[in-house]
Amino acid sequence: MGLVEDLQAAVGAGNVLTGPDSARYARDWMGRYEGQPVAVARPGSTAEVAACVKIAARHGVPVVPISGNTGLVGGTMTTGGLMLTLERMNRIREVKRDSRLVIAEAGVILTRLHEAAEAEGLYFPLWFGARGSAMLGGVLSTNAGGSNVLRYGSTRGLCLGLEVVLADGRMLNLMSELHKDNSGYDLKNLFIGAEGTLGIITAAVMKLVPAPKAHATATVAVRSLTDALTLLNRMQEATGNRVEAFEFMPRTYSERLREARPDLGLPFDPIPEVTILIEAATTVPTEAIPDDAGEIPLVTTLETILAELMEAGLVTDAVLARNEQQRRAMWERREAAAEISVGLHPEVDTDVCLPLDKVEPFLAEALRRLDALDPGARTLTVAHLGDGNLHFTAYPTRDEARLKDKVMETVEDVVAELGGSFSAEHGVGLSKLNSMARRKDPVALDVMRALKAALDPDNRMNPGKVIPG
Amino acid sequence: MGLVEDLQAAVGAGNVLTGPDSARYARDWMGRYEGQPVAVARPGSTAEVAACVKIAARHGVPVVPISGNTGLVGGTMTTGGLMLTLERMNRIREVKRDSRLVIAEAGVILTRLHEAAEAEGLYFPLWFGARGSAMLGGVLSTNAGGSNVLRYGSTRGLCLGLEVVLADGRMLNLMSELHKDNSGYDLKNLFIGAEGTLGIITAAVMKLVPAPKAHATATVAVRSLTDALTLLNRMQEATGNRVEAFEFMPRTYSERLREARPDLGLPFDPIPEVTILIEAATTVPTEAIPDDAGEIPLVTTLETILAELMEAGLVTDAVLARNEQQRRAMWERREAAAEISVGLHPEVDTDVCLPLDKVEPFLAEALRRLDALDPGARTLTVAHLGDGNLHFTAYPTRDEARLKDKVMETVEDVVAELGGSFSAEHGVGLSKLNSMARRKDPVALDVMRALKAALDPDNRMNPGKVIPG
Repeated sequence: MGLVEDLQAAVGAGNVLTGPDSARYARDWMGRYEGQPVAVARPGSTAEVAACVKIAARHGVPVVPISGNTGLVGGTMTTGGLMLTLERMNRIREVKRDSRLVIAEAGVILTRLHEAAEAEGLYFPLWFGARGSAMLGGVLSTNAGGSNVLRYGSTRGLCLGLEVVLADGRMLNLMSELHKDNSGYDLKNLFIGAEGTLGIITAAVMKLVPAPKAHATATVAVRSLTDALTLLNRMQEATGNRVEAFEFMPRTYSERLREARPDLGLPFDPIPEVTILIEAATTVPTEAIPDDAGEIPLVTTLETILAELMEAGLVTDAVLARNEQQRRAMWERREAAAEISVGLHPEVDTDVCLPLDKVEPFLAEALRRLDALDPGARTLTVAHLGDGNLHFTAYPTRDEARLKDKVMETVEDVVAELGGSFSAEHGVGLSKLNSMARRKDPVALDVMRALKAALDPDNRMNPGKVIPG
Repeated sequence: MGLVEDLQAAVGAGNVLTGPDSARYARDWMGRYEGQPVAVARPGSTAEVAACVKIAARHGVPVVPISGNTGLVGGTMTTGGLMLTLERMNRIREVKRDSRLVIAEAGVILTRLHEAAEAEGLYFPLWFGARGSAMLGGVLSTNAGGSNVLRYGSTRGLCLGLEVVLADGRMLNLMSELHKDNSGYDLKNLFIGAEGTLGIITAAVMKLVPAPKAHATATVAVRSLTDALTLLNRMQEATGNRVEAFEFMPRTYSERLREARPDLGLPFDPIPEVTILIEAATTVPTEAIPDDAGEIPLVTTLETILAELMEAGLVTDAVLARNEQQRRAMWERREAAAEISVGLHPEVDTDVCLPLDKVEPFLAEALRRLDALDPGARTLTVAHLGDGNLHFTAYPTRDEARLKDKVMETVEDVVAELGGSFSAEHGVGLSKLNSMARRKDPVALDVMRALKAALDPDNRMNPGKVIPG
């Protein structure tokens, strides 16, 4: 039998898509990558994933997993491969309230995890704009970050256990619910962030945290990034690290936001050089219950610090969210980032990480060198400043591959000089392969190749991604 | 030239020890394992470690790293191998106060890291009894735990970057200082906890945290483990997870402590079934500064909760540490654990992890089955209860290998039935090889073997450890 017939026998005829039916999987959401899978299969269980992987092996066809198709690096592009969409594996197997964890399949959308946690008085802390589409499997495969990493860590730090289908179709059961386990090598972290190149994640045990009882959220205009870090450190000290998000939007971002989404409004006029969205949260009743004057202590703490920093001239303006609606409005302006930054062309997209005290020197130097290289080029930056993670996008004046390459290299030169990384949270996929080849320690690349060959000797698991050829 | 001559040329004649000079490395501190290394070399730099590894390769000799020799599982035992002691690599390369990290070599003793952090107003949160001898390299290679894992995570969670010498003598540079880095596979976590079987850790970047400004510490007698967990949850809720340690000492522990270390005294008479050491800490000035009545708010919080639980009959007695001396005395009684539990023979030592709500059922069932198997056998338990991590030691009535094996299997049966792990924080080494063979998912073992073969094809890095043959 042919590949498609074998797949149909394994997962049902209605769950094997080819031709036009497979188009929406073949193209990434930004329209940057368009492939041509030989078929798209929709397995409904771990056993069916394993069956599909074995069938692909028999036919000598590569296997490329896809979850919510919200990735930014072309990690699911394939021409000639079998795509496995995890969308039917969307069961939340169990929420354990007392142990504060959720056991869920790879196709569960993040928003559903948020809702399931909330129903138990808990919170699933992975939070970013695409949460309404992104699925757990993709989030684990890319070690996704987002706005709350500062407080709760990235996906890796939230994962207790994993279930993985290996290249040979065997199931690896690492579904631990324990907080300590030193029984051999840390296999879990090897598959997290491997982008499907070592195996296919089919389920996971994820930590939940107590639901915040109150938030303190403000949009703040500060003079400089150095002054912004003073605000962060003051708030961390006063609350004992209860800051959950510390987001940076420079003037160029606010300008583009006004242009693309005038409906969202802007908090400050004129637009300041540096706008910060700061949010702290507490689970402690005494920090969350309004006092006689109707003030929530956590909000008062933030208000006091903002007043002091305004007095000192570091903060030039600030707006506190007085209710959930105002809080959501502040977040909408931040979460429009992906929407307002794609669609401008030509573009050179980066996702870099720097030591916190190197963010300001990075921006100064990158803008200086870009201006020398391509006068008139625009840029757009938005950053998880609390993690040193910048989404720095340049829009060169000409759509020339050589110029775009040069722009990328220039930005990455500055990142490397300052001890940063060219990939913070989006992963490598196809779009960062050149950067991997140019920037990564050659010994580290060799070790990655050795690991890949050991676990996928026929190079059939999402081949051509992550590791440069 | 012979091996010894080659080593002498590489690291200096004074740094190659053989015969009686090497005896103190050949025998572990408990006297359970005694090997016979062909030589012990003391490299003084990463380059010298690499040179030694290459020399060993040329002579076809295995390489076994050793740090502070405080391990509990025979992880450094070798007969015929070359031991590399990291003790001369004891430089703290840099403490970065603003970035809250320390860059240190593998031979730095933990106490020195504590002192170096303290000098900058910071804290290195890895804390256990052997901290005056244990070295950073060993702590990373075993993913050591200790008393503060509840708050700060295990060694893995504190490590930002690593430097590793591979089996082929090449140096792998993963010395990142970043909190986000998705540039390829997570190699760092593969070497952490691998016990030297994949390479030799020579240096690391470790996180520091703000130094606590105040502690609230108490020794508490509670009726049951279930009641103890109520105390933990109440204190976590009231402080927003500022509990740093939650240690469990059952009646048998207190009795053995009175017998072996009468000088340390006991807080309660008669000895209660369950004694808990609880400690919270805060970095927030307003939670640490005594009020008009001289009370520290964090201590008052603990005192209030203890009073409420006494009123409710869950807590039967409690002593608060009123000063640092009283606090240290409480910790001494807990940290005497290793000292008072070795030396009794015959013994069967375990280091198990359970879901928190399964600790009480585990103890009941394990004691029941042991009593059936070997009536009269004693046990000694001490636990990082906040992590579900028990050091459960049985002392069978007869020194027979078959009986001891059966005792171990019986304990591990109960652990497995309750979803736990047979190795929580001590690692595998030699002593848990049988458990790995019996308990670990066979697919996971195969994956470990594939990784080991990929990175150490000649099986020369600490061979025979971690992975059963």
